[in-house]
Amino acid sequence: MKQKSFNYTHKKHLIKDIFVQNPQDIQRHLLYFENLLGKENAKADSIHKLAYSYDATREEREPDIVLFPRHENDISKILQYCNKNLIPIVPRGAGSGFTGGSIVAKGGIVLALEKYMNKILELDEKNLIVRVQPGVINKELQNFVESHGLFYPPDPASENQSTIGGNVSENAGGMRAAKYGITKDYVMAIRAVLPNGDIIRAGKKTIKDVAGYNVAGILIASEGTLAVISEITLKLLAKPKLKRSAMGIFDTIENAMNAVYKTMGSGVTPVAMEFLDNLSIRAVEEKFHKGLPIEAGAILITEVDGNLDSEIQYQLIQIEEKFKENGCTHFKIAKDDKDGEDLWFARKNVSQSISIYGKKKLNEDITVPRAKLPELLTAIQGVSEKYGFKIPCFGHTGDGNVHTNVMVEDLNDLEKGHEAITEIFKIAVDLEGTLSGEHGIGLAKAPFMNLAFSNAEMELFRSIKKAFDPNNILNPNKMGL
Amino acid sequence: MKQKSFNYTHKKHLIKDIFVQNPQDIQRHLLYFENLLGKENAKADSIHKLAYSYDATREEREPDIVLFPRHENDISKILQYCNKNLIPIVPRGAGSGFTGGSIVAKGGIVLALEKYMNKILELDEKNLIVRVQPGVINKELQNFVESHGLFYPPDPASENQSTIGGNVSENAGGMRAAKYGITKDYVMAIRAVLPNGDIIRAGKKTIKDVAGYNVAGILIASEGTLAVISEITLKLLAKPKLKRSAMGIFDTIENAMNAVYKTMGSGVTPVAMEFLDNLSIRAVEEKFHKGLPIEAGAILITEVDGNLDSEIQYQLIQIEEKFKENGCTHFKIAKDDKDGEDLWFARKNVSQSISIYGKKKLNEDITVPRAKLPELLTAIQGVSEKYGFKIPCFGHTGDGNVHTNVMVEDLNDLEKGHEAITEIFKIAVDLEGTLSGEHGIGLAKAPFMNLAFSNAEMELFRSIKKAFDPNNILNPNKMGL
Repeated sequence: MKQKSFNYTHKKHLIKDIFVQNPQDIQRHLLYFENLLGKENAKADSIHKLAYSYDATREEREPDIVLFPRHENDISKILQYCNKNLIPIVPRGAGSGFTGGSIVAKGGIVLALEKYMNKILELDEKNLIVRVQPGVINKELQNFVESHGLFYPPDPASENQSTIGGNVSENAGGMRAAKYGITKDYVMAIRAVLPNGDIIRAGKKTIKDVAGYNVAGILIASEGTLAVISEITLKLLAKPKLKRSAMGIFDTIENAMNAVYKTMGSGVTPVAMEFLDNLSIRAVEEKFHKGLPIEAGAILITEVDGNLDSEIQYQLIQIEEKFKENGCTHFKIAKDDKDGEDLWFARKNVSQSISIYGKKKLNEDITVPRAKLPELLTAIQGVSEKYGFKIPCFGHTGDGNVHTNVMVEDLNDLEKGHEAITEIFKIAVDLEGTLSGEHGIGLAKAPFMNLAFSNAEMELFRSIKKAFDPNNILNPNKMGL
Repeated sequence: MKQKSFNYTHKKHLIKDIFVQNPQDIQRHLLYFENLLGKENAKADSIHKLAYSYDATREEREPDIVLFPRHENDISKILQYCNKNLIPIVPRGAGSGFTGGSIVAKGGIVLALEKYMNKILELDEKNLIVRVQPGVINKELQNFVESHGLFYPPDPASENQSTIGGNVSENAGGMRAAKYGITKDYVMAIRAVLPNGDIIRAGKKTIKDVAGYNVAGILIASEGTLAVISEITLKLLAKPKLKRSAMGIFDTIENAMNAVYKTMGSGVTPVAMEFLDNLSIRAVEEKFHKGLPIEAGAILITEVDGNLDSEIQYQLIQIEEKFKENGCTHFKIAKDDKDGEDLWFARKNVSQSISIYGKKKLNEDITVPRAKLPELLTAIQGVSEKYGFKIPCFGHTGDGNVHTNVMVEDLNDLEKGHEAITEIFKIAVDLEGTLSGEHGIGLAKAPFMNLAFSNAEMELFRSIKKAFDPNNILNPNKMGL
């Protein structure tokens, strides 16, 4: 859905106002921004509009103007202007999101933060804290702190592209979440610009802080709809000295899912506990010929860490015991780091491999309480049979997060594919799970919010949105609001 | 400040309306509630009004009516009525808070949740989750889950009295926060009743959930000003098998504070890292004659845990090394649990002991980034000298949280005492710290909010309050709003 017109509609809160920016208005706004930021930082040419029109959902929605703020004060002035002129504006990091959070719903401005606001501002080794601008790339931050013996655990699959600002805005997860939690567990403080241009600080460099409302907490995962994040203070850990990987092969997916929650409940918390189902294993094997067990119902790949050999051994023994109690037919511990990488090969390459099952992949990231995983996977199998789609599943079972991929071969079946997805969402919600463990809602999942939330809950979300953004300029029409 | 009148004022948001409930109105409201809840659950007699007029701040402020809801639906109906009739209402657990969060500012209703809503509803051992009503006492919950081999770490000093609802509303900390974090790190989901009577669910039983705004996150530490929490789902851990305590004696407080942050940065994270300064040590010794080192500048008491002896040993060796590198003159490891309890005696009894220094204790719970502790303690010493008050300090240095106690002997000096406290708050904020690490703001610290927050930040808090509670009925006039 490429949008060529300058016109856009903008839904104001509760009021069904529709207003239109005509080309003359756009030109006037552009002149203002050129004057404010310099011509090189305010663009409305077709190349820029195209370049900032998409994210990993592969939908294309062109903005009218792309702006490159140089610092927080630029953001403040831009927002003041947008607020006064009721121009929709969408903050954007790397544009690697899976739900359309960083693309415009219908015209307006993209505020591109990766060009200038990409600095690591301070490493406070004494307090194990790092302060960054939103455009810093996740993996660059990981590498930087690791070069100082420190550790930033959140590792979304997009770590080589995605920015910390985007990670915070979507509350990104990753493979290490089973032990180390997700982005929100590392955010200590946020500086942000409100739609009226006010600059606020939320949170502190302290582990405890109970003064005032937890504004930082609500900015996390707010998908750029409440404020533009201009600076983030993150907690770091000391880097564990040792790690070791292992893999278990299971005859059935139910056995593997039982092994997951029984291991996690045993007092041992692996860094990661990932799974591939039979279709996922077969896809990787077909593509890469690695000698994977293509008859297996599922494999679990896990990693433990610590500072002592005895700790590593203890954890692996516990995991092996729990796996074998739950039908693990083969358990392999990596001999060394290289061997560990081989064990992880299938998991790291599964996402691209499953394309053998269909032209279009409808991938979701539903999450359920861990002990509900066996039920979830059985129910997904039912959906697969009912609709006739292959649905390979893999993901972060350590935290109950399953990447389900409805593979559509014939693009005429897309609507049926969406029906299958809707059914999977309903199953997840019925199992006390959520629509999204890490990708967010954005545009892609907005139609499903009413499956998960009551009218009262949606009204409360709208009230919160209005408290921050009374004119609804910030990333409007997202999250089903 | 005992309040005898039925009249009260009620500040509406941004509008300086003052309205008065006269005795006839109170009587009418009481009849409604008697009819709704039964006479035994709606009280306006002097005994009930007195019993629900205070918390640990020892201020007395009588409500007009005390209500005992039996379940969530009662809460919903009560709030609907209060919202329609603009009656202030304050949710209350055990009333053990330190800042007046659970007492009325000026008349209105106390909603007492401890009488009926005190059940543990579900222990989900498979998912390591417990679901409770708000009136469950913290220690009862700890004991219950420990009897199942599980572990709920938050352990505020009030654990024997305070309720989980209160803990969530204030985001309570405790000694184990250094390793295990605070209440917010364990809250997975909340059910709550909005002022309009709507019942909402926020959060999920899943480790990851990024659908919709983080409403649970903003209810935590909101001090009963946004909604009445009716149910809480908490994360549990497996209980570590082993623990061991140790104590270090230091000549100077600066040395001890340096040892704290250097230990915490070394890759070892003790469960607890508590300190007593010289005045605190002397006070306990004077009262209990335990042979404490009364010449020491400070003592640090610490505890480590784990599942393996080797883990315990490793941690203690690292701690001893860091302590001794930073001027620790004597390091003692507890031989057994009994010996460990002896090491903890001073810390557990310090709060009552320091009363030897003055009739009135102005105790605060400022928190700074750990590496700022040496600077903080030096500055507090300066305040002590300037104002002539003894200011014994002790607390949770592992997370930078210091209980500072301005001891006022002559009650005519109370105003000067408050000046000293104000200066200490300013110092904490200047050191990038916070007014409160765990006690909250309530009434007691409301006058200091402008030291820590800008006008824009305070306005945002008010907008958030209004989004949840447009008529300002829920715990009004708290938190400086």
